[in-house]
Amino acid sequence: MTTVIHRLDDYNMPMVIESETAVTQEPRASVRESRDGRDRLLEGARRLLAEKGYAGMELRDVAERGNAPRGSIYHHFPGGKRQLAAEATALEGVHIRDTIERALRELGTKQTLRMFGEVFSRRAAKHPERIGCPVAAAAVARPEDPALAAAATAAFKSWEEPIAAAVEAEGVDPARAEAFAGLVVSTIEGALLRARAAGSQEPLDSAIAGLEQALDALIAV
Amino acid sequence: MTTVIHRLDDYNMPMVIESETAVTQEPRASVRESRDGRDRLLEGARRLLAEKGYAGMELRDVAERGNAPRGSIYHHFPGGKRQLAAEATALEGVHIRDTIERALRELGTKQTLRMFGEVFSRRAAKHPERIGCPVAAAAVARPEDPALAAAATAAFKSWEEPIAAAVEAEGVDPARAEAFAGLVVSTIEGALLRARAAGSQEPLDSAIAGLEQALDALIAV
Repeated sequence: MTTVIHRLDDYNMPMVIESETAVTQEPRASVRESRDGRDRLLEGARRLLAEKGYAGMELRDVAERGNAPRGSIYHHFPGGKRQLAAEATALEGVHIRDTIERALRELGTKQTLRMFGEVFSRRAAKHPERIGCPVAAAAVARPEDPALAAAATAAFKSWEEPIAAAVEAEGVDPARAEAFAGLVVSTIEGALLRARAAGSQEPLDSAIAGLEQALDALIAV
Repeated sequence: MTTVIHRLDDYNMPMVIESETAVTQEPRASVRESRDGRDRLLEGARRLLAEKGYAGMELRDVAERGNAPRGSIYHHFPGGKRQLAAEATALEGVHIRDTIERALRELGTKQTLRMFGEVFSRRAAKHPERIGCPVAAAAVARPEDPALAAAATAAFKSWEEPIAAAVEAEGVDPARAEAFAGLVVSTIEGALLRARAAGSQEPLDSAIAGLEQALDALIAV
């Protein structure tokens, strides 16, 4: 459980993007450095998307957050802002899906809800004005960039699948389990934007309480 | 019921802002014209907030949508963009709250959920790339404008209250009714952004199904 929370809470933790380079052995230093630079830029993009939205994500800030020269962005991401945002969204999708899967396996459905609630609440308590989901930011960018919105939709779907499977495993019928999983993802996204507006974790706490209650009732029926 | 749907669906319908001028008789033509101009600007701001967010809401577009000269914005809204956005958010808050209250009174809780689902689904089916909630847009603008976010939070709260009261009236205990009301508002906000990303009404349909199921289970427990 500690690991899970740590992974969610500490967005600075280095992450290796498996799909980028299928290395079977330890890469040479220069390759590793380059990959680190790429990862840092993605991490910067992910944070900025969450904090400022797609329109507000500026490349000079991404470079600054990634501790990388601005010119390196086009080296790693020839498609510029669009590519960076789409990859950051996809990465967040995978990251959250992994976390959901591990939590469900280790904690069960109800404790997973509670764990996400606690992690987000802690973040909302610390920096309410910055809390947000990079995937939600990508989602609302649809008119400017349909591909980015498609990456967001794929991420949302990928979070629902393991939740639906876990609820089904608790004896709920498949259609109801799927509806509940959709409810979880939409509710948490809605609660995140409300927490930001409220400048407090209260909307998140209340959303998790509502979801737990819905789950209890669903299992009891 | 027709009236309710009409009010929600047709955002061009002229609305009188009661708080602005407490007129007890039909205003003179020039006053009425001025008020209409003000209302049209607010309507334009509300639509643009929903479609483009606060950062993307440009005053020249507000004037164009409101069919008003750009100079009239500062006449009606000396505080400019901030004032316009805050008033549009507050207005949407009141408008949706009224609609919720009327629907709950006329249709009951479950049919109200379904009605909102249908209205939003229809809008998502028609213009998925433009669907959005002006209050959600105001909510995420917190770092730039805390007052705007506060208006959003007040609106969200004002939507929860009548829902909680209606669910309590169906025999659910107050704490659970309140948690469910929070769930409804967060879920619909989350589903709206997902519908926009998906370019389809599916996330809304699924959110409403999840909420109905949660409500049924809650009442049955």
